[in-house]
Amino acid sequence: MSVPDVKIFPHATGEAAKTVEKHQDPQDLVFYSGWFCPYVQRTWVALEERGIPYQYAEVNPYKKEKHFLEINPKGLVPAIEYKGQALYESLLLCEFLEDAYPNHKPNLLPADPVERTYARIWIDFITKNIVPNFMRLVQAQTADKQAAAREDFTKALRTYAEKVKGPYFLGEEFSLVDVAIAPWIVREWIIQENRGYDRAAVGEAWKTYADTVAQRDSIRRTESEKQHFTDIYGRYLRDEAQSEAAKAIREGRPIP
Amino acid sequence: MSVPDVKIFPHATGEAAKTVEKHQDPQDLVFYSGWFCPYVQRTWVALEERGIPYQYAEVNPYKKEKHFLEINPKGLVPAIEYKGQALYESLLLCEFLEDAYPNHKPNLLPADPVERTYARIWIDFITKNIVPNFMRLVQAQTADKQAAAREDFTKALRTYAEKVKGPYFLGEEFSLVDVAIAPWIVREWIIQENRGYDRAAVGEAWKTYADTVAQRDSIRRTESEKQHFTDIYGRYLRDEAQSEAAKAIREGRPIP
Repeated sequence: MSVPDVKIFPHATGEAAKTVEKHQDPQDLVFYSGWFCPYVQRTWVALEERGIPYQYAEVNPYKKEKHFLEINPKGLVPAIEYKGQALYESLLLCEFLEDAYPNHKPNLLPADPVERTYARIWIDFITKNIVPNFMRLVQAQTADKQAAAREDFTKALRTYAEKVKGPYFLGEEFSLVDVAIAPWIVREWIIQENRGYDRAAVGEAWKTYADTVAQRDSIRRTESEKQHFTDIYGRYLRDEAQSEAAKAIREGRPIP
Repeated sequence: MSVPDVKIFPHATGEAAKTVEKHQDPQDLVFYSGWFCPYVQRTWVALEERGIPYQYAEVNPYKKEKHFLEINPKGLVPAIEYKGQALYESLLLCEFLEDAYPNHKPNLLPADPVERTYARIWIDFITKNIVPNFMRLVQAQTADKQAAAREDFTKALRTYAEKVKGPYFLGEEFSLVDVAIAPWIVREWIIQENRGYDRAAVGEAWKTYADTVAQRDSIRRTESEKQHFTDIYGRYLRDEAQSEAAKAIREGRPIP
């Protein structure tokens, strides 16, 4: 979903680097990643949660490998190469892992068709309401636009938080709904430090839920050190980022 | 996905009216519809294709029934009430029918996980590129904006048409990819008559595919008479429509 800007720290650090180190051996499934990318983190969390064997491949944004561009001409991450075929789109990859590895527990979608659809409806809510408003808030340059985006973002979080059964969205079981929103929970510090956002001000239900999700092992194992995000998000905060997602937000188009 | 405008012809006509007539008896599954709505048609086609028992309920936009608003407070169609629970979002409802009625043939998603993901990637392409550009073209008021939208729409169709295996998108089998795009194929006359669009000008591959899809029985059985669309699309063509989708396009936001 995201094409990185030209200058970027080239590899994962901290806990994420340890996870990368464990996934260097060849496997049927190659996971093409950008350590910094929130969309990537969704698929990465699903792989880690379910103990699926994968080979980690960092896509170097300076110079995309010929092989990667051959299987995935758009050059977007995350992507999965599975037995020679390239697949992409972070949430569709999570669904793919459910379909292709049904016996790797825990499954992240409920088996019951009604509950499964209910989960997908709220994943869709995250896609349409939470992620774009987060990005609008980050990229907003005037106080007025920041206030409007902050209000829209907070309102979307409150709507979502009302539906959290606790401790996770669907109740006791961690699911793809939590996976879909998690990368923006662990990036809230960006708007907390730069855009006057306050997790606690959204409401107690949101704070409790967000704190719980952020502590989940699979989330922590896919997180790099904060300091290396500063350069990347600096460009977003100055609205200079050139990723496809950043350009879409700037132009009022849907995130591709 | 769509909230109808206040004044609208109140029920299906033509072939669609015959289909409605056959689905009046109470069933476990109640299908809340608006006969004119392209998103509704997706779910309706999936129900018809797979011979799933359903009770058709037209949602009267003048006065939404209390029961409908109780189970679905947003009041959006299409919606499904299944054993007392409301579900919505046209494509998620199609997926729900796959999950809840696995033995009703034909299945509209491939069983193989890679092919299934490939299908979903192209459904996502329709959602992000084809539908919004169609609506932008309909609602565009100046010649410049119409030309730009027409070019974007045509380009998206060509990208899609290149991938059509024929006769249907995935090959011999009609699938959810075809279902996802079909309602805009049978509404192309609106932009053909009003916005200088020409199916043949997109290319031979697109024309052949679009003609084939439009002839499919399930598509024809869910189509009302053209004359009753004129009032509705007149408002879109003058950019006066008040549906949530129309407002989103007008304001450069994602379609909800």
